[in-house]
Amino acid sequence: MKIEKGFIQVYTGNGKGKSTAAIGQAIRAAGHGLRTLIVQFMKEYPYGEVETLNKLSEFITIEQYCGDDFVLKKTLPPQSELDKVKKAFKRIESAFQHGEYDLVILDEICVSIYFKLVETSAVIELIQKKPEHIELIMTGRYCPQEIIEIADLVTEMKEVKHYYSEGVLARKGIEY
Amino acid sequence: MKIEKGFIQVYTGNGKGKSTAAIGQAIRAAGHGLRTLIVQFMKEYPYGEVETLNKLSEFITIEQYCGDDFVLKKTLPPQSELDKVKKAFKRIESAFQHGEYDLVILDEICVSIYFKLVETSAVIELIQKKPEHIELIMTGRYCPQEIIEIADLVTEMKEVKHYYSEGVLARKGIEY
Repeated sequence: MKIEKGFIQVYTGNGKGKSTAAIGQAIRAAGHGLRTLIVQFMKEYPYGEVETLNKLSEFITIEQYCGDDFVLKKTLPPQSELDKVKKAFKRIESAFQHGEYDLVILDEICVSIYFKLVETSAVIELIQKKPEHIELIMTGRYCPQEIIEIADLVTEMKEVKHYYSEGVLARKGIEY
Repeated sequence: MKIEKGFIQVYTGNGKGKSTAAIGQAIRAAGHGLRTLIVQFMKEYPYGEVETLNKLSEFITIEQYCGDDFVLKKTLPPQSELDKVKKAFKRIESAFQHGEYDLVILDEICVSIYFKLVETSAVIELIQKKPEHIELIMTGRYCPQEIIEIADLVTEMKEVKHYYSEGVLARKGIEY
């Protein structure tokens, strides 16, 4: 099976469920034989999904390209992180060209723009290279308006209530 | 690994990404050795996630209990569907008691309430039986206020833009 016309999806907003929705989408697609490349930005920490998705490597490839330490240090991203993002973009372009994937997920790409790892214009240029048959899914808070405008589907995950506000810390297996 | 204190999560709203977020959560949890039971309501149609998740049966069990044909026919649910929901509730109670799962996902439970497959009070009774160490995740449009009130985390998936409004039909691998 192939996707006839691939759309551009965005999951943004301050609520929980953006990255997990993209992962769930890859799981659903795999059941129909579609192949997904997941490129994670700002997630060098061992998120639980990596180990599980590696068991489904026939259908899903997950790769992590840069960390988010600089955010905690309140600095601009160092050159080493910028270089990793460039490498990620080359990988994505190559996936667009070679046609081995039906879905491409750019996890946390929106927040990467916000933290100056990449410019909006560079992401838009990348989006424009997406071939017709690939579905492109982008996640992360702070999606810029220019990307919302060219997307076909935009969901805002809106926090109505969150236990973080009760002082609960991120939990293994749930938040990462 | 075990969850120390399990919370009650709700994914509701009119946007795309509710069920997929719950599935992604199960995938993330599995990476840390947590086990999930997914009970799907109103989804007898072959959704892609079922086939993929069956490959991860060591960590994830997915079961479907009732259909949604009556919605298209614009009738109340027939007794046969109500019986299936009752069976599902017994299964969930048993999972709560036996402790073999760390996460329990009730996919489309909110929309099941809306379409009169089950009463809000019965769902609240079920929620109250949840043991401390289980994380409970409920999805579906139209989550009743009474459930929002007892939940610890509520995300509203809000449709900002959707290709359905452009006349695009549900696509295999993406919407189901």
